[in-house]
This record gives sequence, structure tokens and C-alpha cells, in this order.
Amino acid sequence: MTGDKRLSEDELIARYFAPLAGEGALGLRDDAACLTPRPGFDLVLTVDAVVAGVHFFPDDPPASIARKALGVNVSDLAAKGAAPSGFLLTLGLPQGWSEDWLARFCQGLGTASADFRCPLLGGDTVRSPGGVSISITALGEVPVGRMVRRTRAQTGDRICVTGTIGDAALGVVLRDGPSPGWASAMPEALRGFLVDRYLNPQPRLAAAPALLEHASAAMDVSDGLAGDLAKMMRASRKTARVEARHIPLSPAARWAVAADRTLRERIIAGGDDYEVLCTVPESHLGAFAEAAAAAGVPVAAIGTVLDGDGLPIFRDGDAECRYERGSYSHF
Amino acid sequence: MTGDKRLSEDELIARYFAPLAGEGALGLRDDAACLTPRPGFDLVLTVDAVVAGVHFFPDDPPASIARKALGVNVSDLAAKGAAPSGFLLTLGLPQGWSEDWLARFCQGLGTASADFRCPLLGGDTVRSPGGVSISITALGEVPVGRMVRRTRAQTGDRICVTGTIGDAALGVVLRDGPSPGWASAMPEALRGFLVDRYLNPQPRLAAAPALLEHASAAMDVSDGLAGDLAKMMRASRKTARVEARHIPLSPAARWAVAADRTLRERIIAGGDDYEVLCTVPESHLGAFAEAAAAAGVPVAAIGTVLDGDGLPIFRDGDAECRYERGSYSHF
Repeated sequence: MTGDKRLSEDELIARYFAPLAGEGALGLRDDAACLTPRPGFDLVLTVDAVVAGVHFFPDDPPASIARKALGVNVSDLAAKGAAPSGFLLTLGLPQGWSEDWLARFCQGLGTASADFRCPLLGGDTVRSPGGVSISITALGEVPVGRMVRRTRAQTGDRICVTGTIGDAALGVVLRDGPSPGWASAMPEALRGFLVDRYLNPQPRLAAAPALLEHASAAMDVSDGLAGDLAKMMRASRKTARVEARHIPLSPAARWAVAADRTLRERIIAGGDDYEVLCTVPESHLGAFAEAAAAAGVPVAAIGTVLDGDGLPIFRDGDAECRYERGSYSHF
Repeated sequence: MTGDKRLSEDELIARYFAPLAGEGALGLRDDAACLTPRPGFDLVLTVDAVVAGVHFFPDDPPASIARKALGVNVSDLAAKGAAPSGFLLTLGLPQGWSEDWLARFCQGLGTASADFRCPLLGGDTVRSPGGVSISITALGEVPVGRMVRRTRAQTGDRICVTGTIGDAALGVVLRDGPSPGWASAMPEALRGFLVDRYLNPQPRLAAAPALLEHASAAMDVSDGLAGDLAKMMRASRKTARVEARHIPLSPAARWAVAADRTLRERIIAGGDDYEVLCTVPESHLGAFAEAAAAAGVPVAAIGTVLDGDGLPIFRDGDAECRYERGSYSHF
């Protein structure tokens, strides 16, 4: 069925969205959702949109698009130390959308929603003249007054990241067109890993309790490590020094860099890692790494917060490098 | 300045959005907003998007577009008996957007936000290939367990509406193109009134306390009285009879109907009134009307909830009419 013989909005809701609805959503049969906040908890709220041709390829698998749209929001919650409560969705569909596309989108959204324990609370479906667009508002909760801020890095704190950096920035190149030279001899498993890191970000929800307990500041890496670190330091009125050799790389990224050393800049400056970047007081570093590891999240200390207001310095052997471009911008 | 020499997203936020930010928004300098819920209150959440060429004309005044985008959401809160807490905004801007347009949009958004006591809590700005699109998630609060539902109309309850019905459905015709016959001799003041009702919906926030106290069910009229009443009755597993002569019309709408009686159907079936449609037990009717009037909101009883599951009947003299089309759909 195509957009020309389309379902009514009520039928869409009943068939595809109601099965994803959480308790507060009232079965999506009312004009609003209703949540009773848990006493002793603050509400954390974030909104991020993704647009076809800007943030994803129109022919990306619909389930991946859904997972990414929800994942980028849940990643923000995780970096703030919050546990998800639910989300509201605005889905813009172009002329000629197909019910098959929608079914696969909703299947992916349902799986992601279950994985992230983040149920659908409400939504709106509209016609979108320019292609698919998805805006999601996600809600989470943290103990009162405990949201991990972007602004509170302290001089001497260690800078840490979860997981590995740069995979999605390499994956999007592989997804985008003809295979670049560095990838021509790359084993299929490594290529697949990188593309998956671009298509299916894994929000670091498991790290949230360790962040709450130990981090002085945190944000997720959505626009590249260099730009996001600069943003966090600016917000905290600090600067930083990073040891480039301590930035954790996946085997696939190491393979790519061995084939083409210029990729180091892409790895540091580029893209959608959806890992957590945080600062941790030196005295908490061991306990933080231990708590994160116990939750299944590897963390690496890559640098130190310094007094000052310049762009962070990335030291690579004898070279020192600043990334002028600031954050990669989708806008 | 045009989109080609555009501001960075951080500059946009600092210049245009930060001035609208509420307390929980942390100056829009973090990745998420943080609200401490008021003990004893539930959170009411709603999301609605408006898209250029679908829900508004691309050349509508930017301040009106902003007011409408926020107003349609605040109208949902009002109908649920909720007081606004704040909103999150996703703004999609097309290639070649101008800073002048954005400045006027944000000026209108700021005025509406102040009028509705609904501050900005967070947002995302993205490129929109298909024209301006705006998605807003609005939050409000009601005493625990008291949200006025769509689903709880009881047999024998009176059906009431606030304000006047059909003005926006006539106003959009005047806004849309060559003046129709019925409008050719209409005094300018009446034309202006109707167009303003289309451009600048007035959410009935002042009616929220009276609804909380007296209404068994409520929703806002966003898709036409006939369709929205059908929706509310279906959700409550009831039907209804409406006396068409009791539907409150503005002087401008009365003028239009006197010129062209066929407009009665457009008034009943059409568009964006953003008045509140509610059901009130007979024993509460007087107190409800009094409380609403004391808050500056006129209400009219137009019909009665009946057992049954057919479409509501609109009685007009000796004629009885059902509106098959259901809700007007923007989708």
C-alpha cells in the first residue's frame, strides 16, 4: 500500500504505533500522555531530529533509521546519567511512502524501544514534502540534582571516553559510495563492523550509573571527539590536552589507520560515535573504570583538563595539533 | 544574512533561542534540560508538528507560524486541564532561510511563550529539504490522577464548546486565494477577524481549571467540530446529538452564513478552531459555565451524550445530519 491509498492516521496509530506504547501513553487514544513522576527524581529532557539526506541516507534500512533516531536521543540521556522514561515521536512521511517501509521502521523502533527500555508515549504523523524526517523528544530520570552537566569539568580531571572512537566516521565513508583506497583490501568483517557502527549506534545506557557516581561532566560524542571536547571545555571554561595514542580504536579503525595514516584526523574530528565523553576527578578514575567495566562498558583515559580557554590540544608523538573546525555540523 | 552565510548552530542558539529559555533549560548550554517535578502533580505531554504547505502557508507571517506551532500544543494541554511547564522545539529550516525570517519567528515564539507561560526548555535545529517544519513537544502539569481524558464521556452528559466555532475554517478560505462570493461584501473588520482566527489560535488555558473541576471528558477542536466530536464519542464508546442552532458562531461567521447557507457545513466540519470540546455532567453545567465565564471564557451547551456507537447526529430544524468524513486530516 502506498501513500496514495493510505491508511488514516487513526489506523496507522492502531496498527503500528499502539503496540510500542508505554503505560503513560494511554494506548495513544488520548490527546496527551500522562506520567506520574517518581518522587526524588528529576526529569531529563532532550530532543534531536534526523532528516533523510542530511543525517541518514534515504535508502538506509528503515529499522536502522528508527534505531538511530531513538538511539541518538537515548545516548544524550545516558551521558547525563539518566535512565530512560519514554519518548515522543514526530514522523514526517513524504508523498508515496509505502506501508512496507513504515512496517519495517516501526519494527526497528519497537526493537530499539525495548532494548533501551524507552517506551513510546505519544506522537504525531505529518506529511513531509522533503523526505522522511524524524524528531524525537526523550525523557529520562536522575536522582534530584544529580544530572551530569556539560559545564562542570574541573582543572586536573581526567578526560575519558567509552568504547572506541571514529568507527562511524569511517563507516559512513564505506556506506557513502565507491570504496576508498584504504578500504580496498579490508576484510569484510571489519568493513561490516564499521558500517554497523554508523547505522546502529549503541547508546551507553549501561554507563549511566558510573557516570552519576563519578563524572564531573559528560556529554555524548555526536559531532566528533575534537569538536565535542572543545564544546565541553568551552562550556566548563577550561581547555584540555589529549594524548592521541590513548584514544581507543577498534581493530577495524586500527586496520584503516595502518593503511592510511591521514585517517587519524577523520577519526578524531569526524562523526557519530555516540560514545560518552566525560571528565572524572583523578581520585575517582579507578573506581569509575571499574564500575563501567562491571557494567560492560570499557573506558579509556585520554587526557587531562587544564586551565585556559583555547581549543584542546591533541598530542601525537612530538606533534601538537588543534582542530580548528570545531564540531562537525549537520546543520 | 541567508543560509549561505549562515550562523553556526551555537550562534543561533545564543542569539535567538537562549532569550526564550526557561529555568530548566540550563541556558540551552547543556545536552538536555532538567526539571524537578512538583510533588502531587502528573506530567502531561503532547507533541504536534506543523509543516509549510501542509499546515500553514509558507508566506504566513513568521510570528504567526511560531504562535500557531506553540499554540496548537498548548491548546492540547489546556483541554486536558493542564498548566504549561515548557516546551521543546525542533525547527527544520530550508536552504536559503534568512536571518530576518528567523528573527521574526523567534520574536513571535517569545511573545507566545510569554503569553502562554510556557518557556523553551530545549531544541534542535536541522536542515529541512522540503521547507520550514516545526515540531513541538509541550509539557504541562495537573494534580495527580486528574488529567481530563478524551475517553470518559458519560451518557446524559452535556456537550459544551468554548468560544465560537468555524471562524478559522472560514478564515483560511479568505487567506487562501481569490475572495469567494460570500465574502465579497463582507466588512473588512469581519474579514480581518476570521483571518486572525486562522493565523493566531488562542489556546483556552484560562478554561483549564474549570475543565479540571467539572468536565468528564475533553479535547481541543483541531480537526473540525464534527470529526473531533466523533473521535471523542468513539473513544468514550458513546454517540451524541447536537442542536446545530446552539453551536456558537461569531458575528463574522453569522454574516458569512447569512450570505451563503452552505457554509454551515464548512463551519461544522472544517478546521482549526482550537476551542475546547468537552462533556459535563448535567448537574455541573451551571457551575462549569460560571467558572469558565469568570475566567473570561464563554461556553455553550450544544448537545447531549447518548448511548450507542454511530456517528453523532447534528439536528438542524427538522433535518438530521451525520458527517461521514470524520476528522479533517492534515496527513
